[in-house]
Amino acid sequence: MILTVTLNTALDITYRVRDLRPHASHRVSEVTERPGGKGLNVARVLAALGHEVTVTGFAGGATGRVVQEQLTAAPGVVDALVPVTGATRRTIAVVDEQSGDTTQLNEPGPTVTPAEWSAFQEAYEDLLPSMAAVALCGSLPPGVPVGAYAGLVRTARAAGVPVLLDTSGEALRRGVAARPDIIKPNADELAELTGSHEPLRATQDARRRGARAVVTSLGAEGLLAASPEGRWRATPPSRVHGNPTGAGDSAVAGLLSGLVEQLPWPDRLARAVALSAATVLAPVAGEFDPSAYAELRGRVAVTSEVTAA
Amino acid sequence: MILTVTLNTALDITYRVRDLRPHASHRVSEVTERPGGKGLNVARVLAALGHEVTVTGFAGGATGRVVQEQLTAAPGVVDALVPVTGATRRTIAVVDEQSGDTTQLNEPGPTVTPAEWSAFQEAYEDLLPSMAAVALCGSLPPGVPVGAYAGLVRTARAAGVPVLLDTSGEALRRGVAARPDIIKPNADELAELTGSHEPLRATQDARRRGARAVVTSLGAEGLLAASPEGRWRATPPSRVHGNPTGAGDSAVAGLLSGLVEQLPWPDRLARAVALSAATVLAPVAGEFDPSAYAELRGRVAVTSEVTAA
Repeated sequence: MILTVTLNTALDITYRVRDLRPHASHRVSEVTERPGGKGLNVARVLAALGHEVTVTGFAGGATGRVVQEQLTAAPGVVDALVPVTGATRRTIAVVDEQSGDTTQLNEPGPTVTPAEWSAFQEAYEDLLPSMAAVALCGSLPPGVPVGAYAGLVRTARAAGVPVLLDTSGEALRRGVAARPDIIKPNADELAELTGSHEPLRATQDARRRGARAVVTSLGAEGLLAASPEGRWRATPPSRVHGNPTGAGDSAVAGLLSGLVEQLPWPDRLARAVALSAATVLAPVAGEFDPSAYAELRGRVAVTSEVTAA
Repeated sequence: MILTVTLNTALDITYRVRDLRPHASHRVSEVTERPGGKGLNVARVLAALGHEVTVTGFAGGATGRVVQEQLTAAPGVVDALVPVTGATRRTIAVVDEQSGDTTQLNEPGPTVTPAEWSAFQEAYEDLLPSMAAVALCGSLPPGVPVGAYAGLVRTARAAGVPVLLDTSGEALRRGVAARPDIIKPNADELAELTGSHEPLRATQDARRRGARAVVTSLGAEGLLAASPEGRWRATPPSRVHGNPTGAGDSAVAGLLSGLVEQLPWPDRLARAVALSAATVLAPVAGEFDPSAYAELRGRVAVTSEVTAA
C-alpha cells in the first residue's frame, strides 16, 4: 500500500465554451469534473498501474463529499481523507474552443483549524505503519503551518517509511531540511530553493540541503536525477505535444511505484518519463494514455551523468 | 400555501476576482452560492414576506443535493423537487472587482427523460389541491416538451388554482393559449409574443391571446397591467440604481402574494414594484432590502390607464 497526502484537495471542473469574452454570458457546452490536487492525481495514476493506494489530506462541505465519492469510484483507491468544517475548493478551467486556451478560476479553499491539523497528524501517524511509501504533494492550505511538510517527513522517517516530497517555496525549503528520501522539483522550484539556474548544479545542491535523492523535471526534456546510487538524465524519444497538466504528478507516481517495486534508478526514471509523456498525449487532462505509456517505456534514453558536482 | 415550479433549477455561484483576463489564472477572493432558477427566487421572496411556499421542479446529482439542503435551510420553504438522474446545473457569475462587470458561465443542466417528466406531472397534480396559487417560472430544460407550460396551466385551471406564467419564447406562446390567470413578460418577451413594440398595445394583445391578466415589466419604469378589472401603470418614486438580478422574480412574488391575499390590483402592483426596486437596491443580488421595501411601498404611483385597446 502507498500513501499519498493532499492537504489542499480540490474538485477540478473543466468547462468548454466557444469563445470566452469578459462581461458576456456564455453557455457551457461540456462539463467534466474529477477529484484534484496533486496527491489525488498521483493516487489515480498509481491505481492505474495496479498499486493499492490510500489517500489522505482534508475534505469538507458538499464539494468534499463529491471528491470522496468520485475517488472511491476508482478501483484500488482507499479514502482516508480527514474532515474539515470548511468546503473543499473548486478549480474551474474554462477552455476556449476557438483558441484552445484555458482561463483558470481557483477557489481559496477552507482554512484548516489547529484542531483539524492535529487530527490530520494523528490520522497520518496511524496510517504510516502499513505503508510501503508516502508522497507529500502540493501546496499548503490556509491555517496549516509552513513547516507542516518538515514535520510529516520526520514522522515518516521515524516510522521507517520512504517519503517523497513534491511542493514548492518555503514549504519545500523547510521540508528538504527534514531529509526526505526524494524531492521532485521542476527547474523553477529548484532555482528558487537553491538560487542556481543551472539544473545539474542545483540538483546536486538540493541534495546537500538534505534530500537523499533529487529528481528535477526539465519539462519536455525529461528528468535529471541525483542520488547516492548515481546521477542520470532520462529523455523521452521525441518531443510530445499535448496538455502538460498532471505530467509532473504522473512522474511522481512513476518514481514511487518504482521505489516500492525496488526497481533500479534508471528503470524508475524511464517509467516516470514515459508516464509523463503519455499524460501529455492523453486526450483528457491529467490522465495517461496506456498504449502510449507501453510504447514509450522502452524508448526513454537514460544516460549516466558524470559531470562533477 | 403557494406552489412555485422551477423546471430548470440551478445552483447560482458568484465569484469575486480582481480583474478577469482570458487565458490567465485567477485566485477567487470570495465565493457565495445559493439555490437559483426563477421559481426558487420567487419562493425565497414569498417566504420572506411570511407566506408558506412549496417548491417543485427537478433536482439531481451533487449540485441538486446542495440546492435542496440550502432551500430547506430557509424557514417557510417546503422542498417537493422531483429527482432526475442528471446533475442540476451550476451558473457562475464572475464579478470583476476592477470594473464591477460580471461574466456569466451557465452549465446546460440535465436532460429530463420522458419517465422523469411524467413523474413530475404526477407530483404536480398531487400538490395542486392544497395550493392557493401556483407560479410556473423560467426556461424549459432539455427533454421537456415545448408545450409543457400549456399542460401545467390546464392542470392548474382544472384544479381551480390560479396560475401565473413567467417564461419566454415558444413556451410562453403556447402557455398563453392555455389561458393562465397572469403572465408577467418584460417588454422584449412581450414584443416577441405579440410582434408589437408598443407596450400598452402589446399588453392588450397578449390578453386577447389567452392571458386573463398581463403584467408587463418596463424595467426601471415599473409595471403596466391589463386585467378584466382595469388597466394600470405602477411607477417607482425615483429611478433606483443597483443590481437588477432577481427584480423580475421579486415582482412575481409581489403579484402572487397580492393575489392570495385578495388585494385589489393597484395594491398588488404597488407591492410588486416596491419589491422589485428593493431588490435592485439590495447589496446581494436577488435578495431584497426589507427597509427599502417598507419605505417604497407607500410611494409607488399607480395610475389608471384609459387608452383604448
